[in-house]
Amino acid sequence: MVKKIQEISSLIRQRKHFLCVGLDPDLGKMNAELLSQEKPLVRFCEEIIEQSKDIAIAYKINIAFFETLGSKGYQQLEELMELLPKECFLIADAKRADIGNTSKQYANFFFDHLNFDAITLHPYMGVDSLEPFLQYENKVSIILALTSNPGAIDFELQEMKTGGALYKQVISTFSNSPFSDRIMFVVGATRPQEFVQIRQWIPHHFLLVPGVGEQGGDLESTIRNGRNGGGGLLINVSRGISYPAAEKGKTRVELIRERVVHYARLMAID
Amino acid sequence: MVKKIQEISSLIRQRKHFLCVGLDPDLGKMNAELLSQEKPLVRFCEEIIEQSKDIAIAYKINIAFFETLGSKGYQQLEELMELLPKECFLIADAKRADIGNTSKQYANFFFDHLNFDAITLHPYMGVDSLEPFLQYENKVSIILALTSNPGAIDFELQEMKTGGALYKQVISTFSNSPFSDRIMFVVGATRPQEFVQIRQWIPHHFLLVPGVGEQGGDLESTIRNGRNGGGGLLINVSRGISYPAAEKGKTRVELIRERVVHYARLMAID
Repeated sequence: MVKKIQEISSLIRQRKHFLCVGLDPDLGKMNAELLSQEKPLVRFCEEIIEQSKDIAIAYKINIAFFETLGSKGYQQLEELMELLPKECFLIADAKRADIGNTSKQYANFFFDHLNFDAITLHPYMGVDSLEPFLQYENKVSIILALTSNPGAIDFELQEMKTGGALYKQVISTFSNSPFSDRIMFVVGATRPQEFVQIRQWIPHHFLLVPGVGEQGGDLESTIRNGRNGGGGLLINVSRGISYPAAEKGKTRVELIRERVVHYARLMAID
Repeated sequence: MVKKIQEISSLIRQRKHFLCVGLDPDLGKMNAELLSQEKPLVRFCEEIIEQSKDIAIAYKINIAFFETLGSKGYQQLEELMELLPKECFLIADAKRADIGNTSKQYANFFFDHLNFDAITLHPYMGVDSLEPFLQYENKVSIILALTSNPGAIDFELQEMKTGGALYKQVISTFSNSPFSDRIMFVVGATRPQEFVQIRQWIPHHFLLVPGVGEQGGDLESTIRNGRNGGGGLLINVSRGISYPAAEKGKTRVELIRERVVHYARLMAID
């Protein structure tokens, strides 16, 4: 087992919930005060980190919101890495994958240069396309299986001739690979009934679960059907924490703290 | 039909071949002279652009080789965009895709900020995940169908219950979408026999074809089976042009020119 995965299991036992805080710094949704800052992406994330670092199990950083600003966005991403708490599990939500030669460059950037613990990856091109990520002994590859968007029906949920949907074949192929102990899978909270089956196929793997909150996923059944002895879940909340509705007499920082505490409680385990 | 696609058809008729020049500036393969430059990625690409811009139909820029250097790499990517010839078709080989909200950020960066004509995309998450790219009226989404790597067997070539392999379902789903006229597909040159079938399914779409040269694809049958009335092919050569074996009495620049001319001749049509 990858050391970092053991550490998350410990942190889940200690903090007693599954909250992964998603950082999606969207300039289009920021208030004037944040937009007036020199580095709004960093400041936006810093505010959330300060209110969540004693609670969160993991952070999922949505790379697109940095890349959209080009080199200036990546300067902010590089700066952000210094602010993220090292005891938490740090996920680059980048959804990369290419032929080996090229995937190696991506792995180098996210694992070596930025020092993320994990990255999200597209499985479409097959096992060899992800090997440059999988070869890192103490890093985690989080492979898209069944995503939370409506388009999951187009391919992921389509039945294969060998039996089962495409996402099952993805889970089966990678969980039977020699790199199985460095792998997690993305399964959306919008598909709670599928968690039961997935836990039969892979009792021990961690699942990264987006789609709670704004996307309407069912938290209670996700936890009931998805948790396992090692924890087994990282449940991501991005917009539900980052963009709280204004309330009279409360600052943005106070509202963020309330949401972090709220979601950790909703996910509380004994 | 997207204006830019009509322009490529014209350029193919005029220059009489299908050559797409791939720019993969790999620091690990550059000579000492290039490595001593302040901006080696830009200088490497510039050398190749200078020797190919009167010949090439398209340029495919491998984003990973810039991203691997973080903000400094993206500064060079931004600078490179100024050097690429606007009459050619400019492809960001980025292989992105995410839920809509996030894909929008990627589309904004590659289409608006960098002004690429096209981007390569992963189909796994379904049509809605690519809509933010597809909604650009005069930009092209190049969707992975059947890639040139061995791992294509893992999922892309697996049979679906509805009949045909997964890559066929990808082609069918997107070519029947309302955005069909802004779409191209990636099909590797390592699979020449599949081109016959693909042309039956989609007679009119362009195919971006990697895998010629280093990866051993069959050029002659690719052209015979893949071309159509509008041209129908963009055949990419990266390493075969960028890293020519040294020859006594010839400079690197001369060798690059020779390889560009060589590949354009190999792909020559009447």
